[in-house]
Amino acid sequence: MPVVVLAGGVGGAKLAHGLQQVLPPGDLTVIVNVGDDLELHGLAVMPDHDTVVYTLAGLADPVQGWGLAGETYAAAGMLARYGQPTWFRLGDQDLATHVVRTVRLRAGERLTTVCLTLQAALGLAGPVLPMSDDPVRTRVRTDEGWLDFQDYFVRLHQAPEVREVRFDGATAATAAPEVITALGAAEVIVIAPSNPIVSIEPILAVPGIRAAMQAARQRGVPVVAVSPIVGGRALKGPADRMLRSLGSEASALGVATRYVGLVDGFVIDETDHALGPSVAALGLRVLVTDTIMADDAARARVARATLRFAASQRTA
Amino acid sequence: MPVVVLAGGVGGAKLAHGLQQVLPPGDLTVIVNVGDDLELHGLAVMPDHDTVVYTLAGLADPVQGWGLAGETYAAAGMLARYGQPTWFRLGDQDLATHVVRTVRLRAGERLTTVCLTLQAALGLAGPVLPMSDDPVRTRVRTDEGWLDFQDYFVRLHQAPEVREVRFDGATAATAAPEVITALGAAEVIVIAPSNPIVSIEPILAVPGIRAAMQAARQRGVPVVAVSPIVGGRALKGPADRMLRSLGSEASALGVATRYVGLVDGFVIDETDHALGPSVAALGLRVLVTDTIMADDAARARVARATLRFAASQRTA
Repeated sequence: MPVVVLAGGVGGAKLAHGLQQVLPPGDLTVIVNVGDDLELHGLAVMPDHDTVVYTLAGLADPVQGWGLAGETYAAAGMLARYGQPTWFRLGDQDLATHVVRTVRLRAGERLTTVCLTLQAALGLAGPVLPMSDDPVRTRVRTDEGWLDFQDYFVRLHQAPEVREVRFDGATAATAAPEVITALGAAEVIVIAPSNPIVSIEPILAVPGIRAAMQAARQRGVPVVAVSPIVGGRALKGPADRMLRSLGSEASALGVATRYVGLVDGFVIDETDHALGPSVAALGLRVLVTDTIMADDAARARVARATLRFAASQRTA
Repeated sequence: MPVVVLAGGVGGAKLAHGLQQVLPPGDLTVIVNVGDDLELHGLAVMPDHDTVVYTLAGLADPVQGWGLAGETYAAAGMLARYGQPTWFRLGDQDLATHVVRTVRLRAGERLTTVCLTLQAALGLAGPVLPMSDDPVRTRVRTDEGWLDFQDYFVRLHQAPEVREVRFDGATAATAAPEVITALGAAEVIVIAPSNPIVSIEPILAVPGIRAAMQAARQRGVPVVAVSPIVGGRALKGPADRMLRSLGSEASALGVATRYVGLVDGFVIDETDHALGPSVAALGLRVLVTDTIMADDAARARVARATLRFAASQRTA
């Protein structure tokens, strides 16, 4: 059963990994945010893509959730010696990924083709598709003015409040054809527990993707989202603060509100069971379950529950 | 006293390091071969330049003579995983050098400027100048046809016999202005114990460099060379076999013969003292001394002996 999941970084990677565990090989397609991408030391760096790919390849650092297990930082030390910016620290193995990606992009290959080639080399069974081959760059307005996303996220440790978000290049971008094809073939579409504002909405901002999801729903394909907010707090990253500073409620309900018209069902954590009626009042079906993905088994459990929930909607 | 040394990789780096030890800071200028350079994984790799720079910076691996002390190879393992060619293995710290160099070159900086910037970051007191900002690529003809130099040198471990050598791009290249200025200001010029055929002759093949050396000699500047062949064998690399297959004698005398008209004096090892009269018969003054540079003190000793030898010629 072809399942498509929209994902950002760590949270998205975990659910994607759970889905990979419970689906037959090849049934999972991930559409990944590229709004966080950046050029660093002349290299094309794709934090969300690489987090998902390393996780699905079983190579991710199990503690921090991003980067590679057993990573070393010898090159980073030398880059610092050369006076290169050090706020975004690249591991040695990770650096190889960026080097190979960059040389292929410079040779004129499409971003999607490059990503699929790297994924195949790491043994992935299903594709992790950049939402677009075109550059889309998330920028956030803070009291210090407009900042590149990673400038805010990594360099400033998400300290400033976000007043406004924009996705430079999104309206001019074209969805990767593989993305539209995957959404057209999907029997279930899942929005991962990623930051709705800066992980999921950049994907939706690319013309054609939201429409392809609507078309899928009209064909009866269930679209379900998993809340990245549990007990009013983001499991990782600044989603809770961003929701608040951008006028949403910092809760699963706040996230659900942003997804009205896009999804049929919404998965919230047991901690938030009291929010169930309010989410339902938005016109969404609700699944209350343990959404904490602390280990591989928990990832598989959440994936299985989400797929069952989606299936129950289709047959409804 | 401004001293200019022409150098290839390991042997040249050792003598340059000796000269750096015995000269006041800033008096040493190295003109380095770039004919061995290559592009690897989209990165600009400069083996001879980096060997000299790492050595002068005190960072070189003391055992192998090239690369960095304490180097690790995590990125190389990942590059292999991605199916990248592995015959030229880049260390993690070394990779950082190539990344920084490449991003600066792509930004349009001159090769010389880029190199000087990297050297300054590593604390070098005197410049290591690429012979030209233009690409010059040494190629060797073997029974397998024409090969890129590193293809022959690293990938094939110098196994094939070299039948012919050429320096692609040399005649169209322009000597870096800093090179001509340094030769114009030199009070001593030293040709390091590097492979004459593929380390020194590519430098001499760039229009203007040989003429600047002749002009210096006419001003009374002594030009001396140190033999890279001791007891009929190259201290490192395939210089002995190359000399033989290209019709020279594989000896200090064979090297001296190639430098007739270019140098006034020639330094040979004590092992080769019997060759002294034959070298003198070429019209060269001869210094017989212990040229083996096994440690830092030996490098300084050879440097001091070479400078004294050069000075004795000037006052003669």
